[in-house]
Amino acid sequence: MVQQRRRGRPPKSDDGYSLTRQRLIREGVAALTGKGFVASGLEELLTRAQVPKGSFYYYFASKEAFGLVLIDAYAAYFNAKLDCWLKDEKTEPVERLRNFIADACRGMERHGFRRGCLIGNLGQELVALPDEYRTALRDVLRGWEDRLTACLLLVDPIRARDWARFFWTGWEGAVLRARLERSAGPLRDFQDGFIGLILAP
Amino acid sequence: MVQQRRRGRPPKSDDGYSLTRQRLIREGVAALTGKGFVASGLEELLTRAQVPKGSFYYYFASKEAFGLVLIDAYAAYFNAKLDCWLKDEKTEPVERLRNFIADACRGMERHGFRRGCLIGNLGQELVALPDEYRTALRDVLRGWEDRLTACLLLVDPIRARDWARFFWTGWEGAVLRARLERSAGPLRDFQDGFIGLILAP
Repeated sequence: MVQQRRRGRPPKSDDGYSLTRQRLIREGVAALTGKGFVASGLEELLTRAQVPKGSFYYYFASKEAFGLVLIDAYAAYFNAKLDCWLKDEKTEPVERLRNFIADACRGMERHGFRRGCLIGNLGQELVALPDEYRTALRDVLRGWEDRLTACLLLVDPIRARDWARFFWTGWEGAVLRARLERSAGPLRDFQDGFIGLILAP
Repeated sequence: MVQQRRRGRPPKSDDGYSLTRQRLIREGVAALTGKGFVASGLEELLTRAQVPKGSFYYYFASKEAFGLVLIDAYAAYFNAKLDCWLKDEKTEPVERLRNFIADACRGMERHGFRRGCLIGNLGQELVALPDEYRTALRDVLRGWEDRLTACLLLVDPIRARDWARFFWTGWEGAVLRARLERSAGPLRDFQDGFIGLILAP
């Protein structure tokens, strides 16, 4: 006999399921922005999320499937952040980009430069990851590129796409360098170089 | 009684020791440019280097000590490459940079975009690595920055250092993106953007 799902408000256990799953995703994103995929062990993650050891597979089919959910979650979070800054119509386009970068500097400082970009971290581990990760990561970067292109179209419709591609290419390097130097300096240097480029006559 | 080292040509076993060590370093650098540190297992490395399992510690005190040797070996290799292109006095400075980038594109293509930059890979894994790795990686990047600065001084003595810093910051991002796209396009895009910046009036 197939058990029927009851109508109406879901039982408490469903809430628990969903909250636990969210907690695992939150801890997973934190781990991946820090250590990357390979070095992030499930056991440590479950401890941090206060989920009983061994119950991970109740929430996700595998570590690989979990990783793809984390990429999606990070992309959603980061896209919302980009939309917040880059669509801010009260502000000049180049200033919008500066505001995003200032926010990113604060974010890296807050975590003592121990966390970077989830997309950059997993990108460096590609060889050790399933092939669908490569396309997933690439598509996230393309989404960021589209968002920045839309903003830079207001500066120069012809070169906006090339600039946006250049920005994200270099940005991942700047995040890496900021971690190495434990300083937001590289992010600001990259901002100055990039804005110099787009404002050049 | 302390055994005396014989004079003259070293015995065969010394040659063997040194050759085996070199083979381990070569395979180690290949593994780290591909998968990074954490995902590179010693067992696979020993198999590839055809060194009997279990004899790794005859050559290196630990995986961590081995990693530092690999950073040095990669830095020496890459510095020689940079000196070859960037000190080429027959060629205009910007052309020297183009030649280096063309060589890097060929290198990535030859390995099917499965290998990136050892410094970038380990930089993304910092949280999982001993702290001396951070300063070692940072110092390698600074050495590259000095080399490019020396070349760009011929273009503009005032802005050369800032440009060189901007270049290496963005370059690591371009290498990452080239792996994601499995194409040298991002390296060439970054070249075009960067050279546009330094040639701007």
